[in-house]
Amino acid sequence: MTGRETEIKVLTGLKGENRKWADANRRLLQENRVCMVNFIGGPGCGKTELLCRLVPELGGGRRVAVLEGDVATRYDAERIAAVGAGVAQLVTGGACHLEAKLVHAGLRELPLSAVDFVFVENVGNLVCPAEFDIGEDAKIAVLSAAEGEDKPEKYPLVFRLARAVIITKTDLLPHLQVDTARLEKSLRRVNREVPILYTSAVRGEGIAEVAELIRGLRG
Amino acid sequence: MTGRETEIKVLTGLKGENRKWADANRRLLQENRVCMVNFIGGPGCGKTELLCRLVPELGGGRRVAVLEGDVATRYDAERIAAVGAGVAQLVTGGACHLEAKLVHAGLRELPLSAVDFVFVENVGNLVCPAEFDIGEDAKIAVLSAAEGEDKPEKYPLVFRLARAVIITKTDLLPHLQVDTARLEKSLRRVNREVPILYTSAVRGEGIAEVAELIRGLRG
Repeated sequence: MTGRETEIKVLTGLKGENRKWADANRRLLQENRVCMVNFIGGPGCGKTELLCRLVPELGGGRRVAVLEGDVATRYDAERIAAVGAGVAQLVTGGACHLEAKLVHAGLRELPLSAVDFVFVENVGNLVCPAEFDIGEDAKIAVLSAAEGEDKPEKYPLVFRLARAVIITKTDLLPHLQVDTARLEKSLRRVNREVPILYTSAVRGEGIAEVAELIRGLRG
Repeated sequence: MTGRETEIKVLTGLKGENRKWADANRRLLQENRVCMVNFIGGPGCGKTELLCRLVPELGGGRRVAVLEGDVATRYDAERIAAVGAGVAQLVTGGACHLEAKLVHAGLRELPLSAVDFVFVENVGNLVCPAEFDIGEDAKIAVLSAAEGEDKPEKYPLVFRLARAVIITKTDLLPHLQVDTARLEKSLRRVNREVPILYTSAVRGEGIAEVAELIRGLRG
C-alpha cells in the first residue's frame, strides 16, 4: 500500500468517525427539541458580534446557548456570556475547524432541555469547517463586506452548503471598492437560490431579518 | 493500534513527506539564488492587492515571480499577471493550505534562473498554512485592519513564526472600532519582536517600507 493510499484510507476513517459523532449530536438535539445552527466565516468577519446582536433579537422567550470554537483564547465566549446566553468554549488547540466529537462534548456541557437554539461559532476559516458535518440543522456562511467580491467562487464549498449567506459590516461599503452586485453574481455561480442578508452590527441593521430566518429554521 | 495512534502516525508521515519536498525546494532556490517569501493571511485580507503594489515597488531591476495558491479559480493569478510578474497558479482543489510538493511543481514552472524573488500567496487561511514548511526563506503574516484587534492571540502560530506582520487596509481605520494599540498588545503577547508594518494599498501607503523589508530578506 502506498503512502497516498494509507492517507486516503485514514482520512476516510476519520470522516467516518466524525459521522458517528454527528449522528449522536443529531439524536441528542432531537431528543431535546433543539435546533443547532453552524456559523462559518473567515477570521474577523464579524461572527461573534453578529451573535451578540442576534441573541437578544430572537424574541418570544427563545432560549439560546452558544458553542464558541477557537484555536486559542476564551475572548469570544466572554463576549457571548456578556449578552446573557449560555456558552461553552471549545478550544481546538491548533485545529482549524470543529469536529463533531468536540461539539458533542460542548453539547453535554449545555442545559439542552432548557434551550431552543444552539448557535455554533466555528473556527474563523472559510475552508475546512465546511467539510465537517457536526450534526447541525443548518450551516450559515458569514462574509464581511471588506473581504471583497470574489470570495464565493474562491471558497465555494461553504457557500454551496449554506442555508443562508450573511454579509456583515455593510456600514463599511461607502469606504470600500466592493460592488455588491458583483458579489451576488459570484455567489450565484456557486449557489443559485441561497438567501442573502445584509447586516451592520454597529448600526443594528439587518439583524431582525436574520432573526426571522433563524426562527424559521426551527419550524 | 487505536484509531488515534494510526492518525498520529500517518499525519507524522505526511509531515515527513512534506519536509522532504520543502528541503528539495530549498535546494532548488539556493541553486538559483532565489529568495522565496510565503504570504499568509485570512480570506480577503488584501494579499493579492499588496503583491500587485509590491512588485513594481521593489525596484533596482529585481525580478519577481508569484505562486498563487487558491482553493478554486484563477482570478488572483490574472491580477498578478496584469502587473507584469511571472505567475504560476496552484489550485489546491479543496485543500486549505499549500504543501511543499505542490509548491515544488509551481517552482518548476517558473524561470528560476531569471528570478530574484518568488512570492507565494498562500490559501486565504490564518490557521493551516502556518503549519506547513514549504521551503521558504520567510513567512509574512498579513492581517486586515477590518479583522479586529484580537487576531494574533486567537491565531497564534502564524504570528509567532512570521518574520514581519503587515496590517493592510489602514485607510478603513477611521471607520472601524479598532484600536491599533490593542492590536499591537495582542501581537506582542505571541511575538515580542516581529516588525509591524501598516499599509493601505488604495492609498499606496506603507508599500515602500514593505519593499525595503523584502529586499533585506535576500541579504
